[in-house]
Amino acid sequence: MTPDPQPTFVLVRPQMGENIGGAARAMWNFGLERMHIVAPRDGWPSGKAVAMASGAGRLLDQARLFDTTADALADADFVFATTARGRGLTKPIVSPERAMEMAAEKIAQGQKVAVMFGPERAGLENDDIARANAIVTVPVNPEFPSLNLAQCVLLTGYEWRRHSSQIAHERIELAKTEPAPQIEIEKLAEHYEARLEEAGFFFPLTKAPGMKINLRNLWSRMPLTRADVQMLHGILRQLLRGQNTPE
Amino acid sequence: MTPDPQPTFVLVRPQMGENIGGAARAMWNFGLERMHIVAPRDGWPSGKAVAMASGAGRLLDQARLFDTTADALADADFVFATTARGRGLTKPIVSPERAMEMAAEKIAQGQKVAVMFGPERAGLENDDIARANAIVTVPVNPEFPSLNLAQCVLLTGYEWRRHSSQIAHERIELAKTEPAPQIEIEKLAEHYEARLEEAGFFFPLTKAPGMKINLRNLWSRMPLTRADVQMLHGILRQLLRGQNTPE
Repeated sequence: MTPDPQPTFVLVRPQMGENIGGAARAMWNFGLERMHIVAPRDGWPSGKAVAMASGAGRLLDQARLFDTTADALADADFVFATTARGRGLTKPIVSPERAMEMAAEKIAQGQKVAVMFGPERAGLENDDIARANAIVTVPVNPEFPSLNLAQCVLLTGYEWRRHSSQIAHERIELAKTEPAPQIEIEKLAEHYEARLEEAGFFFPLTKAPGMKINLRNLWSRMPLTRADVQMLHGILRQLLRGQNTPE
Repeated sequence: MTPDPQPTFVLVRPQMGENIGGAARAMWNFGLERMHIVAPRDGWPSGKAVAMASGAGRLLDQARLFDTTADALADADFVFATTARGRGLTKPIVSPERAMEMAAEKIAQGQKVAVMFGPERAGLENDDIARANAIVTVPVNPEFPSLNLAQCVLLTGYEWRRHSSQIAHERIELAKTEPAPQIEIEKLAEHYEARLEEAGFFFPLTKAPGMKINLRNLWSRMPLTRADVQMLHGILRQLLRGQNTPE
């Protein structure tokens, strides 16, 4: 498969079909057509989404449906999470302009980029955001930060179009390796989480969920290559070898 | 009266009250609050506009109503007309980005700037556009150029905010922590290297120097915080606990 020429927009647990349709229109206004949908509240397919999408209905026909955020991001090399406010996670926060500049650069290098959008009311959960490499925040009026889903998609799509048509194609030299795709980061995170769970690392129990999110966030924030991921798996296995085999 | 610190958005013959309310919301999202309305089809005031505007209702209360485009533009020094397509009028055509850059410059010089938006279906008439100094066209997908009124206002307002304020394009939210100083990265690297050496990770011996360099490079390439460093120390200690203490 040839590298994606554009980012995938991932709608995470969208609530109303109309808003999914509105997001499809907003994407197609700027030539974006790759949509992933995670666990839409009112089921899928959605007649209301189709009615709202009108001229952009093809995006809905071709949209891919997933049960979890992790699945929807599996083949992405770099992930943005759109959110209105900081979430207490250590993570770069960029403007839509900078985000789509970065996306255009990464895509020119052959990487796959995904942008997550949260459900209408609550927005993305920290568990979703922890999977992102960077946060995108639209610089809205702090007195009235009320962008809806389709508007957020519209502004991001607009910035994509602004930057994708102007970017000089350049490559970054990666020493005999390439960025780890999201699925590998996910497996690495699971590997560490499982072994650390067994080792009693997540203690006390009341703090365990927060510790797990921090650890997940650590992996996703790091610009890891496939070689890095292999080394980190190897480190974990080797450290545990003494415990699991009789000496 | 002091010079306007921001452009006035002029809605020319808007049809549905909902769209006027949506435009008000889109403006206030980006801190714009000066609205002129020319001959709204369904009369004024409009309950539908108020209902839709919700948090931005103040803009509607303060909006000025005019019978003609000429009246609504009377006190403007420089006028933009937003339109999707060329109109056979000899006139500069600029992107929203360039338009709001120009607007910010002109406003800084004490000029008053207005931006016209046409009615929902037909858009501005040539008679309106002829009053403008420049045309603004959003660079939409030519296959699907279907921006509605509020979306067009939103994108223009977004560009206004981008150009009128010094927006930081990137910052890193550090959740109650700070970047780890080099000495801590160094100690982390030493900790891992020493324990992995004991665990027999650097094997075969001929490859050990290269493996150590790769590991050292991994730590130094990562944007680690002090909290990350503590967690990574903790992970290593916890993983080894089973080995070093009698069970």
